[in-house]
Amino acid sequence: MLKQVRHDGYWGVMTKIGIIGSEGRMGHALVAAIAEAGLAHAGGADQGDDVGALARASDVLVDFSSPAALDANLAACIAAGKPTVIGTTGLEDAHHAAIDQAAGKIAILQTGNTSLGVNMLAALVEQAAAKLGDDWDIEIVEMHHRHKVDAPSGTAKLLGEAAATGRGIDLANSSESGRDGITGARQKGAIGFAALRGGSVAGDHSVILATDEERLELTHRAENRMIFARGAVKAAEWLAGQGAGRYRMGAVLGL
Amino acid sequence: MLKQVRHDGYWGVMTKIGIIGSEGRMGHALVAAIAEAGLAHAGGADQGDDVGALARASDVLVDFSSPAALDANLAACIAAGKPTVIGTTGLEDAHHAAIDQAAGKIAILQTGNTSLGVNMLAALVEQAAAKLGDDWDIEIVEMHHRHKVDAPSGTAKLLGEAAATGRGIDLANSSESGRDGITGARQKGAIGFAALRGGSVAGDHSVILATDEERLELTHRAENRMIFARGAVKAAEWLAGQGAGRYRMGAVLGL
Amino acid sequence: MLKQVRHDGYWGVMTKIGIIGSEGRMGHALVAAIAEAGLAHAGGADQGDDVGALARASDVLVDFSSPAALDANLAACIAAGKPTVIGTTGLEDAHHAAIDQAAGKIAILQTGNTSLGVNMLAALVEQAAAKLGDDWDIEIVEMHHRHKVDAPSGTAKLLGEAAATGRGIDLANSSESGRDGITGARQKGAIGFAALRGGSVAGDHSVILATDEERLELTHRAENRMIFARGAVKAAEWLAGQGAGRYRMGAVLGL
Amino acid sequence: MLKQVRHDGYWGVMTKIGIIGSEGRMGHALVAAIAEAGLAHAGGADQGDDVGALARASDVLVDFSSPAALDANLAACIAAGKPTVIGTTGLEDAHHAAIDQAAGKIAILQTGNTSLGVNMLAALVEQAAAKLGDDWDIEIVEMHHRHKVDAPSGTAKLLGEAAATGRGIDLANSSESGRDGITGARQKGAIGFAALRGGSVAGDHSVILATDEERLELTHRAENRMIFARGAVKAAEWLAGQGAGRYRMGAVLGL
Repeated sequence: MLKQVRHDGYWGVMTKIGIIGSEGRMGHALVAAIAEAGLAHAGGADQGDDVGALARASDVLVDFSSPAALDANLAACIAAGKPTVIGTTGLEDAHHAAIDQAAGKIAILQTGNTSLGVNMLAALVEQAAAKLGDDWDIEIVEMHHRHKVDAPSGTAKLLGEAAATGRGIDLANSSESGRDGITGARQKGAIGFAALRGGSVAGDHSVILATDEERLELTHRAENRMIFARGAVKAAEWLAGQGAGRYRMGAVLGL
Repeated sequence: MLKQVRHDGYWGVMTKIGIIGSEGRMGHALVAAIAEAGLAHAGGADQGDDVGALARASDVLVDFSSPAALDANLAACIAAGKPTVIGTTGLEDAHHAAIDQAAGKIAILQTGNTSLGVNMLAALVEQAAAKLGDDWDIEIVEMHHRHKVDAPSGTAKLLGEAAATGRGIDLANSSESGRDGITGARQKGAIGFAALRGGSVAGDHSVILATDEERLELTHRAENRMIFARGAVKAAEWLAGQGAGRYRMGAVLGL
Repeated sequence: MLKQVRHDGYWGVMTKIGIIGSEGRMGHALVAAIAEAGLAHAGGADQGDDVGALARASDVLVDFSSPAALDANLAACIAAGKPTVIGTTGLEDAHHAAIDQAAGKIAILQTGNTSLGVNMLAALVEQAAAKLGDDWDIEIVEMHHRHKVDAPSGTAKLLGEAAATGRGIDLANSSESGRDGITGARQKGAIGFAALRGGSVAGDHSVILATDEERLELTHRAENRMIFARGAVKAAEWLAGQGAGRYRMGAVLGL
Repeated sequence: MLKQVRHDGYWGVMTKIGIIGSEGRMGHALVAAIAEAGLAHAGGADQGDDVGALARASDVLVDFSSPAALDANLAACIAAGKPTVIGTTGLEDAHHAAIDQAAGKIAILQTGNTSLGVNMLAALVEQAAAKLGDDWDIEIVEMHHRHKVDAPSGTAKLLGEAAATGRGIDLANSSESGRDGITGARQKGAIGFAALRGGSVAGDHSVILATDEERLELTHRAENRMIFARGAVKAAEWLAGQGAGRYRMGAVLGL
């Protein structure tokens, strides 16, 4: 018999979360975040393991494995009829198409960043970009540890997309990144990106909206990677109660 | 005959703005902001001047005079049937009651801060406070020039009110201001205030929402006071087209 | 026989560090920092343990125990003739007098903050305060986690002392802390303090020097407490080669 | 007869400052700064004017004209035997050689940035870079108004030079600027640059030194361009009392 626990104000059955990709750094952080949230860890699965058995034993799954494993993972979750949070990075168009199809049968939340704070920031950026005219120039600057090999960060791009959505423009046609040398004056309506690297910074992101004589600076600072695990667990808990469909991280915040 | 100008996409009559309190620092800045916006300056009135004549010659008025002059100014605007933006500070309950009554007859927009950026920030703060739970601690820190005699600033309080509204609490019962000495741990749900003073800073405000291992910092920086005049002129232009009622600065931004 | 290791460019004997107060949070961090630095951990001592035996087995000691234990710890270090780094907080005048006396016989480095970055910042603040005239107003703002019970932080005071030293004034007579309400204009020459509390912030400190139309902001950000252990280990390694005397943390940086 | 004024604590002859390049934006700001400092304005000279006459009527000159006019200006100052502050930007090697030669006969202070705050920051950066090892990564980020056509700013480069000097490396071989795309991990010892553009920002510069789990951020913020005029006037006043030689802005601050 399942242990009955008081959770969110009532006595109920504790949500059991299964971890796909449990041996990675995020897998370990997820175990800690599940315990911290007072939920149940249904077990983990890695390359070669039976994801189907894990899916049947879980109420909801969190997948931080690899793009290559996505199709098989989705099939297992569909067979078991269990919702799944996908935090795997490096997805391409074909993966997104597979997710869309699976979302016809189960609840799926896919996101490039599971931190609640970053997703809150993205919502604020979209709103500010929508309400302030294009005489407010938008710049995005991020800082990450010295080992990061690409720029700008995926989260900086996510914030840039939020700004572009708010402004009703296409980010791909509006970016200015890596200014160096004789750049000419800033293009009106551009969204600028800059990247700082150094030390062990887990990830700081600022979106600056600047017009004549005033500016807004909207910043998120991550102290370490635990926030991503914590956000994924909140997303899983929320997703466990949803019907089939594809959901965004913002929905967890009621955005 | 009035000069016909193309404005906001159509050929129309240029909005004429009258300034009540035209000899003060804000009065001079308003004249510059009206010219910058390509609008018409209908003239100014100060202590002892005929506000009624100014109101009749204007399409909309902007009042940065004094609380003592408010009743007479409102009466003149009502008699002329002209909308009015009130940026006067130091208003008390009786003044607000008078504004409410006048708003039954003309359009009135009263605000403690006419900067578009600050009002955008207040809207973002309200939303973030509403969506993020009270495990996100809220702190507000501001910096102003060395001559400022009170703390926290009126704008910091305006931002605190926005946070309290978002969270559904009463600011008066939830503030922690001026921490010094043995304060004890932070109260859950408190909104903290801190004030920095120095140099000639026109006004920087940051609202920080901090939880375990991540934080949001939402900042506005004013380079000088011209932004307040510019925002008041935008508000006047918007208000000129509104019917009787009391409006908030956020409405100018479509919030 | 001791293990011979290549360290700092030559083959030599690895410095053995003993930890007084090894069971506390800092004690555990010190063990990790000693391993990270490739040095040897000579063991630990806590309340009731024989500090003398530990001192004899160590090349240098690091004491993060308690003010009450200081006299006995100093006696043990003197008897063994071993240098000691004292990071214990809450020391009073009598403790400092005892340290001064002990420093006639062994090398002692006592500090309120063992982070290299904070001590570098203090040196920069002292220099800036000395070179820039008192038309540059000095403000210090810090943010710490929600559990901290006092304000301003000990490190903020350390930075305030550095500023006061640079300016040749007495901090006790020049502080403005906890501004709230009608404060009047800023006093010329004052050093202001403000404290923010929230989330899990390990410790951010900014010293702002502001004059007409420009300002300097000198900031230190700590991601977690490991930096204090790491700095203490660097201090111990440096102190192991010094003769009797009382040293400051800045000396480790060659300041 | 010259007006006798009390200045700097004694009754003396008021320093008369001549402005070369008086019709530009900096020329006008210099007139205001000279008045503000209680000094005397000896007049101005522009293209086609007699710089020699101005030099003879001045105690010290400030030159914000153009590289093309430098040789003639130097000749006039040498002929009159008057010290000169050179703030002209865009100087090349031949100009610096001419300045070096002229400095054998008169006092010359040439600088890429006349703000006292920026020069103070450069001194702090040099010291921090010298004292902290190369496990502290150095990054420089600046923000300027939307009309600026080059990146990084001249002041960012000046700060980069200060960091490189402190660290004993050559900036040209150590810069990472304009990161975008797959950059690979940060090079050890590199000095990174990033540029933000937007609004009317007069100039913000931050030098970040980041190591494992801690960082220093050393920032200068300029509210407007008046600070450059004010710093040039302080430099002129200081230079008026110096013998032949080439001086740096830091000397004005006693660095």
